[in-house]
Amino acid sequence: MKDMVTPTMPVFEDMLAAHDRIAPHIHRTPVLTSAYLNGLSGAELFFKCENFQKAGAFKVRGACNAVFGLDNETARRGVATHSSGNHALSLSYAAGRRGIPCHVVMPRTAPQAKKDAVRGYGGLITECEPSTSSREAVFAEVQAATGAEFVHPYDDPRVIAGQGTCSRELIEQTGGLDAVIAPIGGGGMVSGCCLTLSRLGPGTLIFAAEPEQADDACRSLRAGRIIADDAPETVADGLKVPLKDNTWHFVSRHVTDILTASEQEIVEAMRLAWQRMKIVIEPSSAVALAAILKNPEIFRGKRVGVIVTGGNVDLDRLPWSAG
Amino acid sequence: MKDMVTPTMPVFEDMLAAHDRIAPHIHRTPVLTSAYLNGLSGAELFFKCENFQKAGAFKVRGACNAVFGLDNETARRGVATHSSGNHALSLSYAAGRRGIPCHVVMPRTAPQAKKDAVRGYGGLITECEPSTSSREAVFAEVQAATGAEFVHPYDDPRVIAGQGTCSRELIEQTGGLDAVIAPIGGGGMVSGCCLTLSRLGPGTLIFAAEPEQADDACRSLRAGRIIADDAPETVADGLKVPLKDNTWHFVSRHVTDILTASEQEIVEAMRLAWQRMKIVIEPSSAVALAAILKNPEIFRGKRVGVIVTGGNVDLDRLPWSAG
Repeated sequence: MKDMVTPTMPVFEDMLAAHDRIAPHIHRTPVLTSAYLNGLSGAELFFKCENFQKAGAFKVRGACNAVFGLDNETARRGVATHSSGNHALSLSYAAGRRGIPCHVVMPRTAPQAKKDAVRGYGGLITECEPSTSSREAVFAEVQAATGAEFVHPYDDPRVIAGQGTCSRELIEQTGGLDAVIAPIGGGGMVSGCCLTLSRLGPGTLIFAAEPEQADDACRSLRAGRIIADDAPETVADGLKVPLKDNTWHFVSRHVTDILTASEQEIVEAMRLAWQRMKIVIEPSSAVALAAILKNPEIFRGKRVGVIVTGGNVDLDRLPWSAG
Repeated sequence: MKDMVTPTMPVFEDMLAAHDRIAPHIHRTPVLTSAYLNGLSGAELFFKCENFQKAGAFKVRGACNAVFGLDNETARRGVATHSSGNHALSLSYAAGRRGIPCHVVMPRTAPQAKKDAVRGYGGLITECEPSTSSREAVFAEVQAATGAEFVHPYDDPRVIAGQGTCSRELIEQTGGLDAVIAPIGGGGMVSGCCLTLSRLGPGTLIFAAEPEQADDACRSLRAGRIIADDAPETVADGLKVPLKDNTWHFVSRHVTDILTASEQEIVEAMRLAWQRMKIVIEPSSAVALAAILKNPEIFRGKRVGVIVTGGNVDLDRLPWSAG
């Protein structure tokens, strides 16, 4: 599928164009602060609440940029993806806004709640077996039958340019920051931050945060090349995927460091955000707060933007109430 | 204790003065919207998120107005209350900001989490037995010993003027509304809405929302006099208290109707807000959304402000996961 990706790296002007393109379809999400968490961390934290975003996560920015950037003829054939997480919801939402089909290939073993959510946003699900080979085969069939445009969840310049609009808003809303930290899985959001901040905040340090149990991006940065793990397990289930060429391009050049947090630290940070900030954030989002609280010496006295990436959680299965 | 209450009803200018007085100590909370809930209700809903307020609830507005309006000599002796809910947290927070003591009389049987929360904001707890007579006796002792100023949770003009600042912000943030709805317990927030909107939005209808199982305000409005129930039971535990003279003054003159919702409807609305809006709201806050969803014919096609009064919830005891 890789050769479906437009091969050109996005530039700053692509992010500006993306912002104009997607503005009617996304929320300009608020930035919240917490005196309690400032006191706890010793830093001044600015939480960019993408959990309030359409479809519940920042991914709708990249998805809308991809969908609304298509020419009419391509758009008519629809879009397709094989993510089963927030990207599938976001792409379904974006396609629905444009009135075109969105095909989602999902393992038949995926939780019913995830299937329902995709269908709730109008996505058309084709089920595959829970293996990479089946997923790729079924996806190829869907694409051949429909001619739908593949939109990768992160390894796609259109998606990265879209995600970059988030840190542009954050800089405008805060008037400037010493550092920004975002969770890293495949690196779409972090790449967007790099793209935007290299122009709008050249002195702003960019940190990424990752679960200890899925620390492939951290090890990649240390090794100077992409390291991909096979099926890591973590409560932060949006962060299991590896870096790819487009995101590695940005992460390797602009990220100061990648910090990790344990499963327990992630769950505690998640609960802390719910308890003190009164916001529903998903475990993947909590990794950034966990990394700040674990490394106060890095952030103390600084103005720090924290990207709260999403809020899609199963309220019947909260990680702190597991029996 | 009633004769401790300043006998003058607050006027619009008291609200304006309160806003200036408390602005440095409160959040100007954001207004959130939800396309999903607009679709579900047929109305255009504007949620004023006082769950993000200092101390987790709107009550900090009234408490700050009372505390920061005291002359220095009175302030030095501190403030006192016998609420054990959000008012106790808020008054403790406000007193802490002014550097004066806050005495809270609480039943020794109150949940440890509530005691911890009050102490976390610097409140000084004196325990009483779980009866009205013990509470009043112990409270009188504390007042005699300290000379602290009693601040009632709602039956106090200073408190009502403070709560009125919330709907002023809401009108500014939305540019005008057809209706506002807020939960009603003792009526402090609703009275504040009446005070403010009678000037800033004279065409804005004011609705209150109440649990069916604690519908004393609804029955009061129908009867034309205050009806107080003895110890009603509801998941919306902030709404068990009755109207008093100061709040009845406003409610009886300005409220269009008081709508009720069942326990199940309250819990479902609470869960819906968490799931779709990604905000942590307490059951008492959810009553307003429940009333809207139950009475779509009243709100359809209207621009409706919804006061989300607070977000203080025990995350280990969520009402939908009760075994």
